[in-house]
Amino acid sequence: MDLFKNFADIKAVQKLEQLARTPYNLAASTALSPERLAAYRVSSCGFDFLYGTQRVDAQVMQALQELADQARLVEQFKAMKSGAVMNRIIGYDSEERQVLHTACRDIFTDKPLSPEETAQAKEQLDRLKKFLADLDKGMICNTKGESFTTMVQVGIGGSDLGPRALYLALKRYCQPGRKACFIANVDPDDAAAVLAELDLSRTLINVVSKSGTTLETLTNEELVRSALTAAGLDPARHMIAVTGAGSPMDDPEKYLAAFHMYDYIGGRYSATSMVGGVTLAFALGYENFLELLRGANAADQTGEQDNITENLPLLMALLGIWNRNFLGHNTVAVLPYSQALLRFPAHLQQCDMESNGKQVSRFGESVQWKTGTIVWGEPGTNGQHAFYQLLHQGSEIVPAEFIGFRQSQYQEDITIKGTTSQQKLLANMLAQSLALALGRVHENPNKSFAGNRPSSLLIADRLTPYSMGALLALYENKIALQGFCWNINSFDQEGVQLGKVLANRILSELAEEKEGERLSPDAPELSLIKAAGLEKK
Amino acid sequence: MDLFKNFADIKAVQKLEQLARTPYNLAASTALSPERLAAYRVSSCGFDFLYGTQRVDAQVMQALQELADQARLVEQFKAMKSGAVMNRIIGYDSEERQVLHTACRDIFTDKPLSPEETAQAKEQLDRLKKFLADLDKGMICNTKGESFTTMVQVGIGGSDLGPRALYLALKRYCQPGRKACFIANVDPDDAAAVLAELDLSRTLINVVSKSGTTLETLTNEELVRSALTAAGLDPARHMIAVTGAGSPMDDPEKYLAAFHMYDYIGGRYSATSMVGGVTLAFALGYENFLELLRGANAADQTGEQDNITENLPLLMALLGIWNRNFLGHNTVAVLPYSQALLRFPAHLQQCDMESNGKQVSRFGESVQWKTGTIVWGEPGTNGQHAFYQLLHQGSEIVPAEFIGFRQSQYQEDITIKGTTSQQKLLANMLAQSLALALGRVHENPNKSFAGNRPSSLLIADRLTPYSMGALLALYENKIALQGFCWNINSFDQEGVQLGKVLANRILSELAEEKEGERLSPDAPELSLIKAAGLEKK
Repeated sequence: MDLFKNFADIKAVQKLEQLARTPYNLAASTALSPERLAAYRVSSCGFDFLYGTQRVDAQVMQALQELADQARLVEQFKAMKSGAVMNRIIGYDSEERQVLHTACRDIFTDKPLSPEETAQAKEQLDRLKKFLADLDKGMICNTKGESFTTMVQVGIGGSDLGPRALYLALKRYCQPGRKACFIANVDPDDAAAVLAELDLSRTLINVVSKSGTTLETLTNEELVRSALTAAGLDPARHMIAVTGAGSPMDDPEKYLAAFHMYDYIGGRYSATSMVGGVTLAFALGYENFLELLRGANAADQTGEQDNITENLPLLMALLGIWNRNFLGHNTVAVLPYSQALLRFPAHLQQCDMESNGKQVSRFGESVQWKTGTIVWGEPGTNGQHAFYQLLHQGSEIVPAEFIGFRQSQYQEDITIKGTTSQQKLLANMLAQSLALALGRVHENPNKSFAGNRPSSLLIADRLTPYSMGALLALYENKIALQGFCWNINSFDQEGVQLGKVLANRILSELAEEKEGERLSPDAPELSLIKAAGLEKK
Repeated sequence: MDLFKNFADIKAVQKLEQLARTPYNLAASTALSPERLAAYRVSSCGFDFLYGTQRVDAQVMQALQELADQARLVEQFKAMKSGAVMNRIIGYDSEERQVLHTACRDIFTDKPLSPEETAQAKEQLDRLKKFLADLDKGMICNTKGESFTTMVQVGIGGSDLGPRALYLALKRYCQPGRKACFIANVDPDDAAAVLAELDLSRTLINVVSKSGTTLETLTNEELVRSALTAAGLDPARHMIAVTGAGSPMDDPEKYLAAFHMYDYIGGRYSATSMVGGVTLAFALGYENFLELLRGANAADQTGEQDNITENLPLLMALLGIWNRNFLGHNTVAVLPYSQALLRFPAHLQQCDMESNGKQVSRFGESVQWKTGTIVWGEPGTNGQHAFYQLLHQGSEIVPAEFIGFRQSQYQEDITIKGTTSQQKLLANMLAQSLALALGRVHENPNKSFAGNRPSSLLIADRLTPYSMGALLALYENKIALQGFCWNINSFDQEGVQLGKVLANRILSELAEEKEGERLSPDAPELSLIKAAGLEKK
């Protein structure tokens, strides 16, 4: 595909390498002028993005724009949204799929970019709406005629992290008498701990797996079925499914209802499809889920702008590349100053690291440049009392991405010493960004801060379904744009396969009746089983 | 103190730099022989530690032993346990304190290393035992004479992360009708969300702050007091405190009971003091808390052995230094294959990064070597479906520390295809360690794995109060030993101060009535407040 180009071959890369020899010094005395902080600011889909505390200047911004243009990042993004086969490695066996998670939120126009896929999304939304209405009307209920209060989502990875992060972020908006829980891990203690706290008779189980073959999910499904049966309940009245049309799980005999997802939506980009939709709409209400889609759609539209100061996900992507490839920082901390976003960094770990933790280009060659960063983070101010010591004075520089909201969700606040808790929260967020940048000279070396550590701030009025949707899609789009720039395929995950193969070999050794190939007596699998004290007695 | 020595001046460091030019190749065809995997194994305090999948050989192990000996790490550890002033920077104003968290679990002998501090710990334990007995007997109850079912711990950082991680890890062992919750963040939504789900009339609030002046904790305490009052309850009948003797919070008028912590225990090392003890013993029972201390004490004793193959925390410390300083890896992933350990990595982030994210030596000089790593991680198998793609095929190498248990906690398991969920869980853990090490050659570059990525495995029979205590203290001691080796002070946290200063300046601008110094109109604080849309209307 002639849209693909190697990162090292882009002219702006050489220019940026030059500029990176003398990056902007945030710790210089007048580095953070009022003019700079006012100018390095982009507003989009409800968010203000402040990047005056990144180590960039006008020249770098110009070169980053050139990088975007020369790498044709926006063209690639539009191609993705329009149904190009972006999930591929040229010349090698690969998934060869479209990448159309954007289509499932392109539902607010008469002229969607990918009409067929948006029509499929709308069809599923209509079915979901009807299902929820039937629940409300009592047409779907338990054998005693009681309504369902709880939905347990059984899924892992993309079928867990995104939906869970969004649910926790928006729990405030739950419909009265509704809640959601999640079971993911094959660790049987995960399901046991969740089930121990539920009234199963009032619970719907939502099993989510695109392939219908995910080991953890099928295992947990069986575990939950046993629990339902043990409680004298009929699983067929309590279980629903989200799966690919025609998958082994797409079976009306086994489920009260089945909603569909499609091959053109990758797991880690599926939170706005039925994968997130069923549980979120059950708990938060259908209209709130639509609001989430509306926010995501706004961020998708922003991603089509050519100018980096009008395209927030592109700007976020390029600043990340500046920090990664030119300033040499291999991790990024995502630090939401919002307790409700406690699992958003974990979702981004999947979305980002599974997308861009690659070393093979879309031409099937080993890349000679750095790719995806290590993403981690916890909510502030908690993190300030935990790992910020290293951010400020450690021997590694960690670019920070702060996220905050002007108002709280619950609006249950208290004024102490003239400020609310929300103001204290925000003051701390701004202060951390400044402290990282400015540093402090002190005669006691242990009280000195070198400063000059980059960060940015993303601020909206309030964490709502709309702003959550926008935030999610801003990051999804940032990640895809970075993958385009690095010329890697952000949409497959071949790196998870080897572990599965080896796990099956080990499992075969542990099984009551051994199946499959015999391992050589010297096989590391056998030696490790023995060293771990797990050999069969 | 003549025990202190700069890392760069240690003879073994040069030797290790030499050896690091040709580290052991885990991906070589017979690299993981049965002999190696059997030999690279240490058993201690209930855990087996397998490190055959680290990039070390006999020469490296020998040099690491020399490093330990020449840096006098075990002597420093013993000095710490015996009350030496290890929290200091020579020649500069510093905390000048002893470091005696080990004393509060050295209670199982007649001859503790620090008798006075252990006596203080025992006194607090006795008071806690009596308080819990009074609860059991109904002598302490609510105004209606009902027992308390819930304890909410209000604290942040060390007063939150460790106790919370331990509680979640051991929730299985809760006494009938008892549970715990936690409020930490100054974000008012944190408290609002927790309080929304509680029956306050049956709840004890445990406010934890060593200084009695922590902004977040005092703010949340007021917020909770308001909620109690609004519910028609008397705060004095519901609130207890854990604080330093003589702190502003050490006030019998305001609290039902106050338990003490001491200056010689740092916040991030305080989980086994009253900081964790009160809530854990309330929820899990006093005997279970003692078991936790017993496990921790075992790990403390192990730390006194000279030989790295008999001193597990020392071995863990040195392998971490090998990966950090000699192989150049700046992050480490802690990957528990146990859902109950879901917040243990977050606790380690604080314990490790706040301890060793430093760049000033104990001689007050800038260090010329790398110090504390970035610690992150999530439970497996969840992580396998999230960020493991990058671990296997990304452009960064991340040493992994796997943690697992042979049996589940709940023992509610299911056999599918001849294996239990617990076996599937463990098979996956072993498989990931092997996959990282071995890699795979494949004609499709996208399906190839370079391998040769280091990891280790820590395995015990079951996650119990004892093994949790041991695991906690193994890591605490590992972290302290690494700090000794890097010649940094692992026990202060000056890096959090600048943010506090700046937050107060910003807060002063946001307050209804401005107090304190006037900022210059060009001050970055003001510009950032404006750019963030937070200026007063």
